[in-house]
This record gives sequence, structure tokens and C-alpha cells, in this order.
Amino acid sequence: MSQSNKYKYSSEHVTEIFSPQNKVRAMLNFEAALAKAEATAGVIPEDAAAIISKSCEEAVFDAADLEARGSRAGTMVIPLVKDLISHVHDKSPEAARFVHFGSTSQDVLDTALVLNLKEAIFYINADLERMEKAFAKLAREHAGTLLLGRTLLQPGSPISFGLKAAGWASAVRRGRERINQSGENALVLQFGGAVGTLSTLHSNGLKVGKALSAELGLPLPDAPWHTHRDRLVGFASALAILVGTLGKIARDISLHMQREIGELSEPIEEGRGGSSAMPHKRNPVGCMHVLSAANRVPGLLSSLLSGMVQEHERSIGNWSAEWSTYPDLIKEVAKASSAILEVSEGLEVNTKQMRKNLDETLEIVFSEALAAALIPHLGRKEAQRLVANLLDEVITSNKPLSLVASANPFVSQAINSKDLKNVFDPNNALGSTNDWIERLLAGEAKD
Amino acid sequence: MSQSNKYKYSSEHVTEIFSPQNKVRAMLNFEAALAKAEATAGVIPEDAAAIISKSCEEAVFDAADLEARGSRAGTMVIPLVKDLISHVHDKSPEAARFVHFGSTSQDVLDTALVLNLKEAIFYINADLERMEKAFAKLAREHAGTLLLGRTLLQPGSPISFGLKAAGWASAVRRGRERINQSGENALVLQFGGAVGTLSTLHSNGLKVGKALSAELGLPLPDAPWHTHRDRLVGFASALAILVGTLGKIARDISLHMQREIGELSEPIEEGRGGSSAMPHKRNPVGCMHVLSAANRVPGLLSSLLSGMVQEHERSIGNWSAEWSTYPDLIKEVAKASSAILEVSEGLEVNTKQMRKNLDETLEIVFSEALAAALIPHLGRKEAQRLVANLLDEVITSNKPLSLVASANPFVSQAINSKDLKNVFDPNNALGSTNDWIERLLAGEAKD
Amino acid sequence: MSQSNKYKYSSEHVTEIFSPQNKVRAMLNFEAALAKAEATAGVIPEDAAAIISKSCEEAVFDAADLEARGSRAGTMVIPLVKDLISHVHDKSPEAARFVHFGSTSQDVLDTALVLNLKEAIFYINADLERMEKAFAKLAREHAGTLLLGRTLLQPGSPISFGLKAAGWASAVRRGRERINQSGENALVLQFGGAVGTLSTLHSNGLKVGKALSAELGLPLPDAPWHTHRDRLVGFASALAILVGTLGKIARDISLHMQREIGELSEPIEEGRGGSSAMPHKRNPVGCMHVLSAANRVPGLLSSLLSGMVQEHERSIGNWSAEWSTYPDLIKEVAKASSAILEVSEGLEVNTKQMRKNLDETLEIVFSEALAAALIPHLGRKEAQRLVANLLDEVITSNKPLSLVASANPFVSQAINSKDLKNVFDPNNALGSTNDWIERLLAGEAKD
Amino acid sequence: MSQSNKYKYSSEHVTEIFSPQNKVRAMLNFEAALAKAEATAGVIPEDAAAIISKSCEEAVFDAADLEARGSRAGTMVIPLVKDLISHVHDKSPEAARFVHFGSTSQDVLDTALVLNLKEAIFYINADLERMEKAFAKLAREHAGTLLLGRTLLQPGSPISFGLKAAGWASAVRRGRERINQSGENALVLQFGGAVGTLSTLHSNGLKVGKALSAELGLPLPDAPWHTHRDRLVGFASALAILVGTLGKIARDISLHMQREIGELSEPIEEGRGGSSAMPHKRNPVGCMHVLSAANRVPGLLSSLLSGMVQEHERSIGNWSAEWSTYPDLIKEVAKASSAILEVSEGLEVNTKQMRKNLDETLEIVFSEALAAALIPHLGRKEAQRLVANLLDEVITSNKPLSLVASANPFVSQAINSKDLKNVFDPNNALGSTNDWIERLLAGEAKD
Repeated sequence: MSQSNKYKYSSEHVTEIFSPQNKVRAMLNFEAALAKAEATAGVIPEDAAAIISKSCEEAVFDAADLEARGSRAGTMVIPLVKDLISHVHDKSPEAARFVHFGSTSQDVLDTALVLNLKEAIFYINADLERMEKAFAKLAREHAGTLLLGRTLLQPGSPISFGLKAAGWASAVRRGRERINQSGENALVLQFGGAVGTLSTLHSNGLKVGKALSAELGLPLPDAPWHTHRDRLVGFASALAILVGTLGKIARDISLHMQREIGELSEPIEEGRGGSSAMPHKRNPVGCMHVLSAANRVPGLLSSLLSGMVQEHERSIGNWSAEWSTYPDLIKEVAKASSAILEVSEGLEVNTKQMRKNLDETLEIVFSEALAAALIPHLGRKEAQRLVANLLDEVITSNKPLSLVASANPFVSQAINSKDLKNVFDPNNALGSTNDWIERLLAGEAKD
Repeated sequence: MSQSNKYKYSSEHVTEIFSPQNKVRAMLNFEAALAKAEATAGVIPEDAAAIISKSCEEAVFDAADLEARGSRAGTMVIPLVKDLISHVHDKSPEAARFVHFGSTSQDVLDTALVLNLKEAIFYINADLERMEKAFAKLAREHAGTLLLGRTLLQPGSPISFGLKAAGWASAVRRGRERINQSGENALVLQFGGAVGTLSTLHSNGLKVGKALSAELGLPLPDAPWHTHRDRLVGFASALAILVGTLGKIARDISLHMQREIGELSEPIEEGRGGSSAMPHKRNPVGCMHVLSAANRVPGLLSSLLSGMVQEHERSIGNWSAEWSTYPDLIKEVAKASSAILEVSEGLEVNTKQMRKNLDETLEIVFSEALAAALIPHLGRKEAQRLVANLLDEVITSNKPLSLVASANPFVSQAINSKDLKNVFDPNNALGSTNDWIERLLAGEAKD
Repeated sequence: MSQSNKYKYSSEHVTEIFSPQNKVRAMLNFEAALAKAEATAGVIPEDAAAIISKSCEEAVFDAADLEARGSRAGTMVIPLVKDLISHVHDKSPEAARFVHFGSTSQDVLDTALVLNLKEAIFYINADLERMEKAFAKLAREHAGTLLLGRTLLQPGSPISFGLKAAGWASAVRRGRERINQSGENALVLQFGGAVGTLSTLHSNGLKVGKALSAELGLPLPDAPWHTHRDRLVGFASALAILVGTLGKIARDISLHMQREIGELSEPIEEGRGGSSAMPHKRNPVGCMHVLSAANRVPGLLSSLLSGMVQEHERSIGNWSAEWSTYPDLIKEVAKASSAILEVSEGLEVNTKQMRKNLDETLEIVFSEALAAALIPHLGRKEAQRLVANLLDEVITSNKPLSLVASANPFVSQAINSKDLKNVFDPNNALGSTNDWIERLLAGEAKD
Repeated sequence: MSQSNKYKYSSEHVTEIFSPQNKVRAMLNFEAALAKAEATAGVIPEDAAAIISKSCEEAVFDAADLEARGSRAGTMVIPLVKDLISHVHDKSPEAARFVHFGSTSQDVLDTALVLNLKEAIFYINADLERMEKAFAKLAREHAGTLLLGRTLLQPGSPISFGLKAAGWASAVRRGRERINQSGENALVLQFGGAVGTLSTLHSNGLKVGKALSAELGLPLPDAPWHTHRDRLVGFASALAILVGTLGKIARDISLHMQREIGELSEPIEEGRGGSSAMPHKRNPVGCMHVLSAANRVPGLLSSLLSGMVQEHERSIGNWSAEWSTYPDLIKEVAKASSAILEVSEGLEVNTKQMRKNLDETLEIVFSEALAAALIPHLGRKEAQRLVANLLDEVITSNKPLSLVASANPFVSQAINSKDLKNVFDPNNALGSTNDWIERLLAGEAKD
């Protein structure tokens, strides 16, 4: 997997992959592979195919010019094919007859998109594998590190930081698996000609399709899918769900990073997270990039979903809208994935502060455990009334709940001091935590 | 599968399943199963469990009242549990201690939602299987029925109606498979207690979880998923994509149904598709319901995706938003699926009109085939210029392209009359159509 | 405005206004007003109008039954009109001829929606006026109350709580004004008959329209708007933007309410914001309801926007989708507005904790001010390098920046001790705060 | 208004306005104007301001490089200001002290966005004014041109094409007015410094703000709006609603353009709307571009609405998401507006085909009128039963409704032949059409 050594984060590559110039490149790769496949299938002459594919390699096209001319024509394939024919014609008028033979614009644009998405996913996958490992490592290291669980942004019962990190790791793994699984169905050849019948190829459509699949290294689907976008939108959904997961992680980290809480910190580095006005600033820019993606992606996916309602054999508008939406989507995914990867590998965990925040709740977070211990002895209503009174006392007196409870005669009568101590032992608060961590990490990615 | 005999369309059932009263019922089922599971695991006494589960069966709750009180409390579980305790307490104060033991509101609401979704999916699946069969039957019957392919709402090359129907059938099948596959991961038990640790159950969390899974007939996931919603949103995406597919089918059918085109018709029935103003109206109300769902669903899914960014151990707002969004979503799915099922089983196909519309294009839709036939003899540029001139002549003279072509000396010089006839034989226009139909129907649902 | 005395929060009323039964009521009000208007315009007999309008008052319809029959027909107006005719026919076969005369389903449904929206807005407006006053009061009281400004969830420079509250107040006021302004254009009569021409009324359409407007107390627009939904979506956008503003306020308050920050608190009340598992819980349920609405509303608006693409003289699907989306939207608005109103009127402000959090930053939040003071004497680069070093020292030594700075010889050389003291005086940190507060409150709603 | 002479369509300009290089240009304009304003207000020396503003004019920055460095820093303003300081420092270390004085990244980015949006709107407005005129002209020309009204894509009653075009014209006008009205509030200066207090400027904030407003030609709002985005989202909503209107028009035109209907046609031109496979293709690419925008825009707006929930004094993620969403949105608006403008000015209206399609309905579209004529004589039920029977006869016999009706004895008994003839006179079918056209065009834009 030497490719992975060359880069650090997917976003650097994905921006490049979806540059206008690279899009034209993928389209030319399609035209070259088509000519070769048609020669293999005996549909066009071998030497015509050789000249066409050579021209596709050599020809230089100006992506911006094609975009502009394509806008009037409807798709940029029309001027591209026109120019390619010219180029081939200069070498061989005979070969020029076979450029783009039997195909149509949508074959070119859809397959080029698939090729680019596939390349992008290679890098995003690598991000996700590393990220999962980083979080799994944190999960193991901090399996017993206590911190305040928080619900509705208020103190809940204690949890361990390892459980939280294990939850992140396994959500990232599921995200990766969902992308790869849906990608297997979605990242396939589109080849159907003008209306999906490949009529120009007579009965050779399937044969050419198979050869073209082999040339491009893309699976051949059951049939052309030019107006059935469900597989591609399935893949897009998987991407969008991943961004939702990364957004959840970024939201958590940015909340833990608030100065007053101070339990986690993004890696600090020169030039990272400054402010043009405030010299003291260490902004969580990694989380910022992810939360920014999490804001944009749901809207992009809703456009793709609305866009599935495509008319007849080629849609008017909904398909061309995809030309912007897919690149936007995959770039947001790469941005989010790169940003959280950097954070995951350099995350600073302040275990002291975690404990301090827990202790400063004056043990009110053990109220659930205290009630549970008292109920068998006092009955539910009585126990809950008693705990409510004790909580009031904690707030008025500013003394921890264990102290207030042990001084209370009703409590002492109900449970002995050893059991009471157990109630307030945070290590007893972890319940099934270790079971969950083990199960969450069970499917961890292997090298 | 005797259940399927009792109903005609899923929508009738799904509205009922997601009634407020039935939601409360599912919540009580959770509480009953929890008590039984905790008794099985030895965590609470057997007879307490028996009393609690009996109370859950007997107790009558006013869903509207619980909603109102729940709104102030934050969730409707809080008043529900309060009332349930009261009810149990009347029978046995001892048993009342063990109601809802170790659990939390989110366990109840999430698992109740999962139970209701699972029931709804049973009916929606049945819709989809019947619908797929109806479309597959049309695909086989009309494998050779020619009609105009249409791209950007303009005439393209000919296709067969069977190919179109096969495309619909297989997209419905993929939709069903996607729902079931994602449902396997998503429709699982949620059981984690206050913050996901099940701390009140000490080390017995997993044991109780297993027993509770068995009681409810729901798989046990690796760990509680209260703030990781990816699996549930994966399921919701599958539902949304299905609606996109149904929308595409409804869009096609409604366009074919336009009076001037008249190729398809929704089944006509008393009381269906009338107008309060125009007595002659036969409105495509089936398609209307589907297109209405296709308008609403992308926005609903975008809320679920945005909502994945959930804070810490329980979100503030994003989770409670789901309480409305999931019922809205599944009801739209059932509405769309029921509507298109009815259309699919009664669709009227006007093959004469299909042929008429094809013939009235004056064969200009064979321009691609004509150019393909001429290119080998004239070269690309010359051939295309000639075809463009012939098309102009068709428009001016209102004569079909074959006539205009056969009268043209350049054409006659290039190809003989038999080859020219072949160009205009619509049966030659179907290319790989039969291959595609066969492959698209290969995975068809079996009885 | 005696109506406003009867209620506390809009949500209680809006749920009722959008009940199925009340929707039928609004539709019958339309039919009654139509008959009266047509009599006024001399199009139908006076006594027929009297009988029809009396029947509309008396007739009892089952909303659920109409919904079910309407689903097959396409709209629930069809069975409603059928039943109303029956009812009138029993009294006078002659009068029955003039029920719904010249009108169409969409006239009834659109105008009924407008009537219900108008009623809902009355209550929401009252919420917003009270809320604005509550925030404006806080703004005045706390114009000089210092607290930490926070950017990207990290400490920024100090601000005053009054400035924050003034920002909330004026955003609420703009939200209200935007709703009322767009409502003036949107909440108008729809009356166009089958395709918008009112052809059954011959040349009397405009005359009847004017009388109908007067009857219903709704403005008459330039022309029917059955497929031009821009004015209504403009109104919906204003509602959605308001929810965005309320979401911003709720997000702020819920963050200030975190235990470790503790600067604000929602009003605490019995039965408000508890937990089924944790007795100590005081959940910010007001903010929760608002953030929940803020999650759902953008998706609802995107459906309305997509739905504007309506075909010809009546859309297939996009219009019927509105029947669910508008009620969902306005109910979310009322929920959010009621929730934040309750919070605004009972908000607890902990000024001590605000000051404590500010002080605990060790004055690093004055680094911008310190740099600004040093730059004139040391030049920009030198000054910034010096401040960076001082900040490092603060972190290592845990001493406040003023101490570290005053002990630094380069600082002492550059500025005198009085100027240095000024840098760290939080009262100097407020800059234009008072100007802003005054300007923000200038447009405050008057009683 | 010489500016308008230079261009044909807004899209050419808007792409350029939102180029990365031009964005940097707008940011430098802000910095230059800031320095001048601060000199005017006496806050920094006149000659420092002169040097800074000159540097802003002369300095050449690489937008791509700033983007890359900005991504790590959080915003591209940080490297921009750094480089600008360097540049100024080379000329005058003294002046370098006053670069970006008292301001912050968000001031620069928000104001630069506003400047660019304002420029874009100038061109879009010009599009819209021309488009409105083109549609108003069609409305007048075709006030009496009959065509089939269509509801749910099925034949309704007749309308006139002029009414349809007048509806388009007035919706475009409302769209333009909505944009300009909301733009007045939204396209204003953002100037608040680090947290909105302008504390570095002490009490001079308002004074500098006024001077800066004057320099940039942007109104000064009541206060900084860095985390209250409602005005800007109000403007974005107006843009989104316009796209919805343009989508409705494009949907209509593309449906009228279907070959079998053939009532309208986009202007035909060399290189416009071809196909890479089918030589006969004349694709409606104008409508395609608009429908593509109408697919993308609702999702973009939903991101902006979700993004309003911004934390405290600067959001983490939601604000940075806007940096992509606003340019995407305005470019879609310009694309849609340019495309439909071209269509509107060259639209071909086939009045013969309109009449033919109307006639071929065999007059069943007059069933509403026939029923209306019969009801006074037969009563409602009897009349409707009779019309239903006549409609059945039309379908079986393929004879027009007028013939079938006049041959029916019950009809002849009820109404005389002259009245019957009137029922089927399409000119009687237009009802209030002329009133509506007059009212719709009353507010037409003047030169």
C-alpha cells in the first residue's frame, strides 16, 4: 500500500482529485478505455482504438473552456468529444469515426465521477483507519479514567473516558464499513448509450460493457443506471452519516475543551488556531472544520435525495445538479476526516481536570446510586423524598452528598456505613463499562 | 405469513402503529419486558416482575395527558413511570421499588421507537414485494413493446416499455434490500441506563441486556447507542432512498399519463382522483401521494443527519426532535409505498399510443442510427452534416426521415436500401434491452 | 386586545388551532363566506346563501373520516363538499345548487390554511412581544455586568451580559417584524376556481372576490396564487429565521448553564426538567424544546422551497405536501417561542459566577488590550513577541497576566504603571458596548 | 447605468466576482477603508493610513496560498493580515502598527462577503428586470391566446397564455422586490472587533464605524451582527425563493416543450442543447440549468438556517460553513436567472398547437361549464349524473362533448341551443382573466 506513504491527510488529495483538470482527465480515461474495449469486443478496429487511446493520453484540454462551452451545450462532454475527434482526425480520419462510439455524455460523466470518487475513498479510508486506531488506543488507556457523564449539558452519573473514546472508535469503524459496503454497489461502470439500450452496438453491448469494466477496473452492474440513482445516493448517505458521526465527536471534544471544563485539548502547534485580534487564542480549529462540514452535508444530501426523482431516460436538471453536489460532498468529507484525524492523534487528555470536575459536583451525581441503595430499605417514595431533601442540603451547605448523607439519621438507619461508602465510590459507578469497551473494540481494524 | 392476509396496503397499519396510544403501549411493553428480564437475571424478585408486567398490561394511560406532562418534564417517560409506579404500588409497595429499575427515559423511548418501526417495516416490506412482482410482470409482458425513450423531456431513441418496468422493479428490490439490511443493524435494543453504564445494575448489565433482548425479540447491539445515532440514521436513509425511487417511478407514470401522451394510466375507480370543480377529472392521485412524500422526505432526513451531532451522553434537542421526525418519515414511506403499489397492480398500458407517439416523431429518433450507418462510408464530419440536412428537410417537409433519406442521392450512394431499411426498423433499436431485462429481473423476490 | 389575557403561551393555542377538527371548521367558514359573498355580488340568491351558511355552522363533520375519503379522492374538500351538499339538500334542494359555487378544492384548503395561520400568528406575536421585553429588561439591568466573551467556545475578550441580552432582544424584534411584514403579503385570500380564471362566475370573479375578502377579513391579492407559492414561502422563511434566532439564544443559555460555567439558569420549578433515572437533575428543558425545533425547521423549509416548483395550474404532489408541512412548521414555531418565553421571564443570572469565570482566566483575555498598549512603543512585531512570552509565563506560573506584565522590565520600560493598570481594568474593556445597547433597544416594542 | 451595457447575463459576472482572487481583493478593500476611516476618526495617523491603503492596492497575494495557510489558522484573514503587515512594514514600520487596527477576522470576511454579494445583486437585478419585461410583453400579446389549463398534469379548464405569462412576470417582480428589500437590511457593514465591543478603539467605535460605512458605501447597522445572522439569512431566503419561482417557470416551459405537446420552445441556436449521441436533439438547456439550481438551493438554505444556531460571540463551525454556502448560493441564483432570461427573451409560442391540444380534448374540459349551465334547471345531483353520462359517451364515441350534448334530449329540454353554444365557446371560458392580467402587470418595472 505504498500509495498511503505519500500523504498525511486525505483532504490534500481530494481537492486535487476533484480539480476541473482532473475531471477532464477521468473523462478522457473513459474515452480511451471505451475505444480499447470496443476493439477487444471486435466492434471497432484495433488500430483505431490505439490511435484514440493515444490521443486521449496526449491531448491537452482547457477545463475552463470546456465548462464554458459545455454550459451552452448542456454538458461539457459535447465540446470535449468534438475536440477529441478533431485531435484524432488530424492523425487518422478513419479512427475519428470511432471516437465515443455508441456512448453518450452521461456514460462519460457518471463513470468519470465514479472513478474520481473511488480514488478519493482510498485516501478517506486511510484517514478513518488511523483515526479509529487513535481512538481505540485512548479507549484502552483510559478505560478506568473517571469523568462526569453529561446529559442535556448537565451533570449525569460518572462514566470513564475510555468508554467515550471506544464509542467514537466504533462509530468511526461502522462509518467506514458503511462507506465501503455501499461503495461496492455504487462505484460501478455506467454504460448505456443514448437512452440505456446501447442500440448503436446492436447485440454487442454487454460484451463491450464487460471489456470496458475490465479496462477501468470497475464492476459491471446489472444494467445502466442513468436515471436510477439509488446506489449512488446510498453511497452519498454513507458519507453523510460518517460526517454526522465526526460531528458528534467534534462537538464532544469542543465542549470538553471549554476553558472552565478543560478536560481535553486539541494538539497545540505554531500557526494553528490563532486569532487576528486576540494573541492568547488557541482555537479548536480541527473541531471547527468538522462542525462546518456537519452543517453543510445534510443539505447537500437532501438535494441528492430530492434529485432522485429523475424524468424518463435522462432527467432535466436533477442530474446536472449532481455535478456540483458530489464534489462538494466528498470535499467536505475529506476536510472533516482530515481535521478529526489530526485531532485524534494529538488529543491531550487532562485526567486531573476530569477528576476535579467530578469532585466539584459535591457528589450529587451519585444521587441515582444513593436512591438505588435506599429503595430496598425505605420503599421508593420514601427513598426519593429523602434523597431530594439531602440534595437540597448539599446545595445550601455546599457540603458533598456523602457527608450530608452519613450525617442523616434516616440514612444511617437504613444502610450501614460500608454500603454507604460504596455508593460514593466512583469505581463502582462504571457498571458495564468494561463489557461495552471490549465489545465496542472487538471489530477494530487490523493492519 | 398469515399476517399479510389481513391487510391490503401498509399505510392503513402504519398510521395506527404510530398513534400516540400505540406508542405508550410499546413503552409499557418495554417496562414489562425489563422487569421480566431483571427477574431472569436474578436482579429483582420474580413476583415483583410478575406484578409489574401484569400492571403494564392492565394499566390504561391517556397518551395526550402524558404528552402534556412530558413536555414540561422533558420526556413523557417521566410521568408514565410515575403513574406506573402508582399503579403497581396499589398492588404491592414492594414491587413498586423495581419498576423501571436501572433504566432511563431514553432506553424506553428508543426501544419503543424501534419496536414500532419494526412492526411498520413488516407491512412496508409486503407492499414492496407485491409491487416488485407487479412491475416484473409488466417487464416480461412488454419486453418488446416499443416506446419513445425520452431525455430532458425530449424524444430520444426508442426503448421498450419492458426495460423501463424492469428498471422500476429492480430499483424497488434494491430499496427493499437496503431497508432490510440497514434494519438488521438499526432495529436493536437500546439499554444503557442514565449515562450508558447501567451502573445501577453493577456488573449485571450485560446479563440483563441479553435477557431483555430475548424478551423483546430484538438483537442486542455491542453497546448502548444513545448518542451514536448512525445505525438508525442509516436505516432512515434507506427509507428515504426508497421514497426517491418511488418518486422517480411516479414522476415517469404521471408524465406518461398526460393526455397528449396517453401511454399509461392509473387504475380508474369510483371516488378516486376526482375534482370538486371539474366533472371530467381523472387525477393521478397515486402518483400525487408519492410525489408529495418525495417532497417531504429529503427535508426530514436532513434533520436526522443534522441531529446526529449529539452532545456528550444525551443530546439537548437533537434527540427529542427525532420523536416527531421518525413517525413523520415512516408514515410518508407507507403512504408512498401503498399508493404506488395500488398503481402498479392496476396500471393500464396503452401500447397503441406508445407506437403512435413513436411514429409521429417522423423517425427523427433514428438519426443516431442513421449517422452510425453513414459514418463508415462518409467519415464522421460528412455523415453528421448530411444527417443534419436531412433532419432540416424532415421538419420543413413533414415527411418521415426514412423517406427523406431514401430520396437523397448521397445516402443512396453510401448505403444500400436494405441497410437503410434496417436503420429504421425499431426492432433493431433495442440493442441490449433483453440482456438488461434478464439481468435486472434475475434477483426478483420469490414467494 | 382582550384575547391575549386568556392564555399564557402560544403553544397551547396553536396545537388546538391546527387540530383536524378546527381545519374542517375553517373550511366550512370559507364555504359559508363564499355563499354570502356570492349573494352580495348578486351571483346566487340571498336565501340560498342564508341556508348554506347556516348549514356550515350547524353541520358536524368527522375530520378523520373526511381525511380517509379525501386521501382516495385527492383532497378532503371533495367529500366535505359532497356531505355539505347533502346537508343543504335536506333543507333546500334549490340552495344545494349553490354550495361551493364557482370554487375549487384549492381555494378552500389554501384559504383555510391562511385563516389558521393568521390566528396562530396572533398568539405567537404576543409571545414574541413579551419575550423581547424580558430580554430588554435584562439588557438594561446588566448593561455593566461583565462576563467572558467567548469565541469558538474559547475565552475571548470581556463583554457585558447586557450587550448579549440586547442582541437577543433586538433579534427577536426583527424576527417578529419579518413575520408580520411577510404575513401581510402572504396571509391573503386564495380564490380562483378550477384553473384560476373563475370562469363559472363569468365576469363577476373580481366582485365576488372582493366581497369574499371582506367576509373573511383577509386582503384580496392581485390575482389567484394557486401555483405561485412565493408569498407563502416568504412567510414560512420568516418563521424559520425566527426559530434560528431562538435556537441561537437557547444554545447560548444552555452553554452558560453548564455546571462548570454556571452563569445562567432556566427557572426551576416542580416537575420541570427532571430525569427518570437521576434525582439531582435540573435539565434545561426550555432550551431543549427550542433546539429541537431548530433541528426540524430547516428541513421543513427546504421542502417548502423545493415544493415551489409546481406544475402548470395545479401541482401534482408539491402542493399536497404543504398540507403536512405548514402545520408542522407553525407548531414547531409555537413550541420554540413558548419555551424560550418561559425561560426569558424567569432567567436566573449569576453575576458572581460571571465575574469568577472572568477572573479565573488569569487575565489572558486582556492580551489584545496589552498588545494594543505596547505596539505604539515597541512596534508590532516586538510587542506581539513580548505578549506571547508573557502568556507562556502566565500558564507556567499560574499567575495573572497583570502581575507577570508588571514584573517584566520590557513592559515597564514601554508603559507606565497607570497605563498598565488601565489595560487590565475590565470596565475599559467594554468599548462601544453602551452605544450598541442603546441602538439595539431603540426600536423596542411598546405596549 | 453604463455598467449594464457591458454584459449580457449575470452569470458571467458573478462567477468572476466570487473568484478566490476577487474575494481577497474585497478583503484588502476592507483593510484599506478601515485605515482611512480610523484616520478620519483621528484614531491612527493620516500618513499611516495612506501607506496602508496604498499597500492594499499594490500588494499581490496568492489566494490559493492564503486559503491553505488559513485552513490551519482557522481563517484566511490571519495569513492575509500577516502578509499585509510585512508589506507595510517594508515601507514604514510605524504604519505597520496600525494595520487591521481594532478589527478581527470576522469583520473582514463578513464585510467582504457583503461587498461581493452587493455587486452580484446589481447584475442579477438587471437580469430580473429584463426577464419581467419579456414575460409582461408575452402576457400582453397573448392575453386572448387560449390554451389548455392543466391541473395535476391532466386537462383542466381553458386559460389564456397571457394569464400564465403575467403570473410569471409578477412572480419575478415580487422576487426582485423581496431581494432588494431584504438586501437593504442585510448588505451592511460588519464591524465589531474581537467580541463585538470594539474595545481596542475605546469610545471611538461608533465614530470609526460611521466613517468606515461611508468609505465602503455600506449602511451602518445598529450594532455588530457577528453571531446574529438573521438579516443575512433573510436575504438568502429571498434568493432561494426567487430560484423557486424560476424553477416553477422552467418546469412549466419544459412541460409545454414536450414534443407531443409542443406549445412552447426555447430559442434554438447553434451549439445550444445538443447531444453527444443523438443528432436530432434540441434540449431545453435553459430550463435544465434552472431546474438544477432549484434542486440545489433548498439544501443550501437549510444549511444556512441550521447554521444560525451560533455559539456565544463567534460560532465554531456554523460561521465557517457560510464561506462556501453563500458563494454556492449566489452562483446558482445567477445561473438560473441568466438561463431563464435567455429563454424569456427568445421563447417561441406555438399558438396553433395550443389550440389543437385544446380542441383534441373533445371539449371535455367544458364539463364544468356544462354542469354549471344545467344545475339551475335540473338540480345539482341530476345535472352531475347527466354530465357524467355524457362524458362516458364522449369517450366511447370519440365525438366532442358539444355534439353529444346537443344530441341528448335531457340537455335540450333543460337549456336552449344558444345557451348550449355559449357553454362551449372558449372565449367565455376566460372568466376574470383580463382582470387578473391587468392587476398582475400593474406593478411592472419601469425603465
